[in-house]
Amino acid sequence: MISKEEYERLAQAACQYYKRAGIVLTTAEKERIEIADFGLQDVEHTGLQLIVYVNTDRVCAKEMVLLPHQTCPEHKHPSTGALPGKEETFRCRYGRVYLYVAGEKTPNPHCRPPHGSEAYYTVWREIELNPGEQYTLFPDTLHWFQAGSSGTVISEFSTHSTDETDLFTDPRIKRTPEISEGI
Amino acid sequence: MISKEEYERLAQAACQYYKRAGIVLTTAEKERIEIADFGLQDVEHTGLQLIVYVNTDRVCAKEMVLLPHQTCPEHKHPSTGALPGKEETFRCRYGRVYLYVAGEKTPNPHCRPPHGSEAYYTVWREIELNPGEQYTLFPDTLHWFQAGSSGTVISEFSTHSTDETDLFTDPRIKRTPEISEGI
Repeated sequence: MISKEEYERLAQAACQYYKRAGIVLTTAEKERIEIADFGLQDVEHTGLQLIVYVNTDRVCAKEMVLLPHQTCPEHKHPSTGALPGKEETFRCRYGRVYLYVAGEKTPNPHCRPPHGSEAYYTVWREIELNPGEQYTLFPDTLHWFQAGSSGTVISEFSTHSTDETDLFTDPRIKRTPEISEGI
Repeated sequence: MISKEEYERLAQAACQYYKRAGIVLTTAEKERIEIADFGLQDVEHTGLQLIVYVNTDRVCAKEMVLLPHQTCPEHKHPSTGALPGKEETFRCRYGRVYLYVAGEKTPNPHCRPPHGSEAYYTVWREIELNPGEQYTLFPDTLHWFQAGSSGTVISEFSTHSTDETDLFTDPRIKRTPEISEGI
């Protein structure tokens, strides 16, 4: 859960990142920026700001902001039966993001998991994305990502987004955001 | 068919529009900008510049540029049997675009079809998109669009893109670009 004040502060910070990235949002969009704190009460370290542009049955597009060194925790988008899980392409628009996926561990990775959550970060192949660079994640791929020291703005192009089906490595995590007062 | 010189000129113009929109492309992307002249030999009026970021079986994302008053001609993305046609969301990033779809004709529309092609423009409900504004087109929806006087940059978020299945109102149109010399 985050406070209304924290929501406002982070949403305003996200707007500044969008502006730096040259991304124009409508007034209505600025008022519905989402803050994900993943239920860990430590949004500065484990958290994500985002605006969802469109999310139909077939296509989703969003623009995510991570503050400097902020982390989106490890998770995957599972397939269920014949229904394939979410596929997503991350495209860095501003700053730098380090993306971690399964595979041979990168020696001396740039990032460390948030303090106290180390046990829930298990994939260590590092992919560095600078503006204009992108990476496609297919369903059932464990991944996590962290912004570099300047923060980052990342476009996500994907199939339908259903946050409630995401599988996080950390069992403490709740994806659905809770805000302490109505906003 | 367009000449190599025309390709280079339009690709460079597109790069300038991307820069104005704050969109960063990699060097490799700048070298594979696509110019669609639709086979009408009049690319300044009927044409489109674009870069495809990703096009998997499920998701496609691209960034389109239209020069001032340049038009993407009327077409639709048909469903075939049980397979639904392409769904696409246009999001204006820079300049202004006028999108035309089926529905009640807008009085005094801002655009006119390219000279000599008037017969092949049949839908006249006008949707004006300025930066940050977007519109979603579901399959089988006839549409065309034209840039305003400053040109435009438009992101497209969609299902898999298969240009060869597009149905154009104008039977003279060929979607697959042809360039007179290898590039």
